[in-house]
Amino acid sequence: MSSPRTVAQDATLALLLEMTGTPKPGNVDRHHDHDDLRFEHFLTGAVGAAPALRDVPDAPLGPTFRRAIEGMSHQRGGNTQFGAILTVLPLAYAAAGDDLTSEGATAVVESTTVADAVGFYRAFDAVDVAVDDPPEGLGDLDVRRGGDAAPTLRERDLTLSDVMERSADVDGIAAEWVAGFPRVFDAAAAIADDTGPVPDRAARAYLEALADEPDTFVTKTHDRATAERVRERARAARDGDTDVATFADELVAEGINPGTTADLTAGALFVALRRGLEV
Amino acid sequence: MSSPRTVAQDATLALLLEMTGTPKPGNVDRHHDHDDLRFEHFLTGAVGAAPALRDVPDAPLGPTFRRAIEGMSHQRGGNTQFGAILTVLPLAYAAAGDDLTSEGATAVVESTTVADAVGFYRAFDAVDVAVDDPPEGLGDLDVRRGGDAAPTLRERDLTLSDVMERSADVDGIAAEWVAGFPRVFDAAAAIADDTGPVPDRAARAYLEALADEPDTFVTKTHDRATAERVRERARAARDGDTDVATFADELVAEGINPGTTADLTAGALFVALRRGLEV
Repeated sequence: MSSPRTVAQDATLALLLEMTGTPKPGNVDRHHDHDDLRFEHFLTGAVGAAPALRDVPDAPLGPTFRRAIEGMSHQRGGNTQFGAILTVLPLAYAAAGDDLTSEGATAVVESTTVADAVGFYRAFDAVDVAVDDPPEGLGDLDVRRGGDAAPTLRERDLTLSDVMERSADVDGIAAEWVAGFPRVFDAAAAIADDTGPVPDRAARAYLEALADEPDTFVTKTHDRATAERVRERARAARDGDTDVATFADELVAEGINPGTTADLTAGALFVALRRGLEV
Repeated sequence: MSSPRTVAQDATLALLLEMTGTPKPGNVDRHHDHDDLRFEHFLTGAVGAAPALRDVPDAPLGPTFRRAIEGMSHQRGGNTQFGAILTVLPLAYAAAGDDLTSEGATAVVESTTVADAVGFYRAFDAVDVAVDDPPEGLGDLDVRRGGDAAPTLRERDLTLSDVMERSADVDGIAAEWVAGFPRVFDAAAAIADDTGPVPDRAARAYLEALADEPDTFVTKTHDRATAERVRERARAARDGDTDVATFADELVAEGINPGTTADLTAGALFVALRRGLEV
C-alpha cells in the first residue's frame, strides 16, 4: 500500500493532521489554543510552507528549509512549525529517494553540506524560535545570529549534520537527526498498528512519546526538572491513573508546551502516511 | 495590501480556514464531526485538491475542477469539498487574471466551454454528490451520469455556464455562478470589515448567510420547507434570540447540513485572503 499523494502533499498533510489529535497536552490542537498562537496560525503556516516542500528532492535541504520557514512565517502566530518541518524535511528527502527508513534518513543527514547549515541558520532570520544560550565559547554559532553565522560555519567547515551533532544532547529533534529518527519511526509504527480515526492515533502516539522522554522544548523554556515532571505526569495519564483532559488543561494553565514531542508526532504521521496510512 | 501567498495557496487555505469557524451550525467544523465525515477528511480533501489548483489559470476550468475533485476524494469521508471547490475555482481564475471582482468572475464563467462542462460532469465520477433528480425530459443531463453525459453535452453544445444557468434556480452555487457571486463578495466584505480571529469572522459570515437565504443543499437533502425553517432559526440565532451553540447541536441531531452556505463561506474567505486578510 502506498500514498495517493506526493511527498510534498504528505509532508503538508502531516503538519495539518498533527494539529487534529486532541488532547495533545500543552500544545495547540483542534480543541486548544494559546492566547496569541492559535489553531488557524498552524493551518496557515502549513500552507505557507508547502511550495518549498515541493522542491524536495531537487533543491538542497538547507535552503529548502529556509524557504519553508519563510513561507510558514506569513501568519500572526509566530513560530508555528519550525521544529515540525525540521523533523519532517529529512524524512521527505529520504522518501523522495525511495528509502524512507532509518538508514535512508541517516544517509540524507550525512550528505548535508555547509551550505545546508547556512540555510538552516538563515531560517532563524524569518521567525523567533525559543532556544537556549549556546555553551560558553560557542557564541559565534548561536543560531539566533541567523545568516550572520554563515562566515563562521564556512570557516569551521560545519555541515548541517555537524550542527545537529553539537545540539543532540540538548535538543530532541537534533537527537533524532543524528540517530536515524528512532523515536519517529517507533511512533509511526504505533500509529500504523493502532486503530480508529487518525487524529486519535496521533494523540495516543503523542502521549506515549511524552511519557517516554523529557521534552527538550520544555527543558529550554522551563528547565530539566519541569520536563521530567511532565514526563511523569504523562505516564500517569497514559496509564489511566490521571485524566488526560485534566492533564492537558493543567499544562496549558501552567504555560508548559511540549513542542518537541509534537514535532516528533508530525514526523511519525508523515512516515505513516507515506507507508499507506489512510485518513 | 495583498496576499503573501499564491492564488493556489489561498484557495487551499480558504478550504482549510472554512473548517476552523465554529459553530458553523449543521456542518463539520473545528468542534463538530459527523459519524463518518470528520474534520480530518476535510483537511485531507483540501491537501488532495491542491495540485490541481496550481494549474489555474494555465489549464481550462472544467478539467482542473475534475482533477481537484479526484485529488480531494483520496480520503474515507466521501464528498468533502465538491461545492466549496466549485465556488472557489472561478474566483481563482478571476484572481489569476488580476480581476477578482464580480465582473471578473462573470467573465470567467462566460468564457467556459463545452469541454469545461464535460470536465464538470466527469468530476461526478470521482465522488458521490447529493443531487436532486433532474426535471422530466432532462435525464440525459443528470449529473449522476458523470462522463457518460459528454456526448449529450457536445450534441447540445452546452458550456459549463449553460449548465449552471439550468440549475441556478435550485442550486445556490449555480446561482452565484450566473449572477457574479454577489453573496460571496458580500460575505468577503463582511469578513474583511469584521474584527477578531479569522475563524470567528468566518463563523459569523456563515450564520449571516444562513439567515439570509434558504440553503439549497438542505432543500435537496430534505425539502424547501425545512430549508426555510433553518433560515428562520438562523435568524433567531444571529439576532441573539436563541443560542447559536444550541442551534448547532440541534441541526447535527436532526441531520441537517447547510452545505451550500459553507461553500459560499469558503469562497468568501478566498476573496478576503486575496485582498489581504491576515490570519
